[in-house]
Amino acid sequence: MRTDLTLAETLSLIRPVDPVKLAAVQARLDRQTKPRGSLGRLEELACRFVAITAREEIRRKSVFTFAGDHGVVQEGVSAFPREVTPQMVLNFLEGGAAINALARHAGADVVVVDMGVDYEFVPHAGLLDRKVGRGTANLARGPAMSRAAAVRCLEAGIAIAFDCREKGIDLVGTGDMGIGNTTPSAAIAAVFTGRPVKTVTFRGTGIDDEALARKIRVIEEGLKVNAPDPSDPVDVLAKVGGYEIGGIAGLVLGCAAAGVPVVVDGFISTAGALVASELHPSVREYIFAAHRSVEIGHTGMLERIGQQPLLDLGMRLGEGTGAALAMTLVEGALRSLREVRTFDEAGVSEGNER
Amino acid sequence: MRTDLTLAETLSLIRPVDPVKLAAVQARLDRQTKPRGSLGRLEELACRFVAITAREEIRRKSVFTFAGDHGVVQEGVSAFPREVTPQMVLNFLEGGAAINALARHAGADVVVVDMGVDYEFVPHAGLLDRKVGRGTANLARGPAMSRAAAVRCLEAGIAIAFDCREKGIDLVGTGDMGIGNTTPSAAIAAVFTGRPVKTVTFRGTGIDDEALARKIRVIEEGLKVNAPDPSDPVDVLAKVGGYEIGGIAGLVLGCAAAGVPVVVDGFISTAGALVASELHPSVREYIFAAHRSVEIGHTGMLERIGQQPLLDLGMRLGEGTGAALAMTLVEGALRSLREVRTFDEAGVSEGNER
Repeated sequence: MRTDLTLAETLSLIRPVDPVKLAAVQARLDRQTKPRGSLGRLEELACRFVAITAREEIRRKSVFTFAGDHGVVQEGVSAFPREVTPQMVLNFLEGGAAINALARHAGADVVVVDMGVDYEFVPHAGLLDRKVGRGTANLARGPAMSRAAAVRCLEAGIAIAFDCREKGIDLVGTGDMGIGNTTPSAAIAAVFTGRPVKTVTFRGTGIDDEALARKIRVIEEGLKVNAPDPSDPVDVLAKVGGYEIGGIAGLVLGCAAAGVPVVVDGFISTAGALVASELHPSVREYIFAAHRSVEIGHTGMLERIGQQPLLDLGMRLGEGTGAALAMTLVEGALRSLREVRTFDEAGVSEGNER
Repeated sequence: MRTDLTLAETLSLIRPVDPVKLAAVQARLDRQTKPRGSLGRLEELACRFVAITAREEIRRKSVFTFAGDHGVVQEGVSAFPREVTPQMVLNFLEGGAAINALARHAGADVVVVDMGVDYEFVPHAGLLDRKVGRGTANLARGPAMSRAAAVRCLEAGIAIAFDCREKGIDLVGTGDMGIGNTTPSAAIAAVFTGRPVKTVTFRGTGIDDEALARKIRVIEEGLKVNAPDPSDPVDVLAKVGGYEIGGIAGLVLGCAAAGVPVVVDGFISTAGALVASELHPSVREYIFAAHRSVEIGHTGMLERIGQQPLLDLGMRLGEGTGAALAMTLVEGALRSLREVRTFDEAGVSEGNER
């Protein structure tokens, strides 16, 4: 099976999730010993997972943490210095970051995808080298990257999704690392939701009021200088996006095309997922929104995608940490689908529910 | 170590969680390689668990599903017939219900506590016989139980908590089974929150509009006939509560006294936890509120307790299903506390967060 699909080929493969398959799983859940629908969103997770994969059990889970640097950090939009991007990538590879801990908790692998970190890494089993450049250009002054580079990012992500299908990875999580990357994410949020920049821009890793005001100005300038076209998602990604955001967008697109459910982490991952879902309307049906980030621009993007977040725990870390946690809910949902007996099997009387 | 404490002895043992210990855990989290506070409520979970237990790892987890029958079902307040209570208890003991599946998912045992089911069970390893009666009296016509019976329920739950401490069960979950038990729970919600009955009463396992209107009338009558005194929580439990609700209240009280964190499930469990937290104001600090139930009376009780639910997944099953899921979040929080490296260990530059 080919994994090196073009963007156009990928888009042509994406189909809505089959409503007949969804209904068949729900019918099974409705015969189990519990009031109908009483497991709430766990039932939705089970239905979608099974309808997409035709499986009831997850063989392997992986979180892909896409990393990239951002030219816009020179505008002073982040609380952390740029060298933290490669430092954290090394921390991921050594297993010492929050995503490693939470992925171990979830029984998932962590794979770091270098989409564009300004650093040359030594090869490592947990690192995919998909470097498109050594950091984007400063989006406040011009396009973050060329259109060709944006397509390369998308196709790198797409290939990972098809590779997951080959390897029996039945549930994929997205994650990000890139100092400065809430800035392009907020820009993407503003473009696709049409909301004013100041209503979708927040503190990232913890900037103060002055830096937040600067960040808002920088994004406003970037949108003015670049004039990204919301009807052309690749244009938006190229002009005000980032390499890791493009990789995430490609992974989400590829998952929809390959039939792999994808758990989308927080603010940055959702910016990537939004680019993907603007490219094809059925992409959203393959997305499990992991959690609601503290970032104020997150909710508008989730609404645009049409997915409700599973968790709301005040998290704002990225890396895929929310995705890893949310994967455990999908596991729980499937466990319940597989193991709960029906009214007949258990000899329990049925109710007269409305 | 004695486990057969009286209610008064138990209340005398309850202390606030030590703020110095909480701050020490937070200080450790703040040195880890992530923006300060960026794991949100996971950090709160880790702080409280460690401050309460002086441990960073959970040795054993158990969900206690308290079961009881309710005289008020003769008023037609439930979508399921009364015999479903013992049928579901047998289903739990055979491992076939949703709580069994989700507890296996969480790595927790399920223990069923018969507080007052109208059925004689054959002894079983997973069943504790703490029967106080064979179903409560109809709370619409008079007290559900005597004050002495209410104290027996509380002390049965207290003993279980102290037994957990002896057995190395470091995290306890609450659950319930009892056809009709959203009716006493809504009554308890109305009494302690002071809200009108119709604003705290909902569909339980799935009653229609007519039955819901009847349920509201029944509770209003019960409150009028019994006049429970909100300043005397044992009086409230006796007059409009239930045996399993009393057992849950006792377990939560006992956990606070024994220093065992307790994950409180949904609507019925929260009614029990509310009785406990009205008996002693520090009880709430030992409670992890698992999830927000679909039942409309739940939020007011959680506000009164002062705990935010961890999950909001549209669940309304009870049994301890939400508690089992939320236990996995506590596990994740502790994993992160134990395994994430500090900035120094990882060689990562620190930020200038506000």
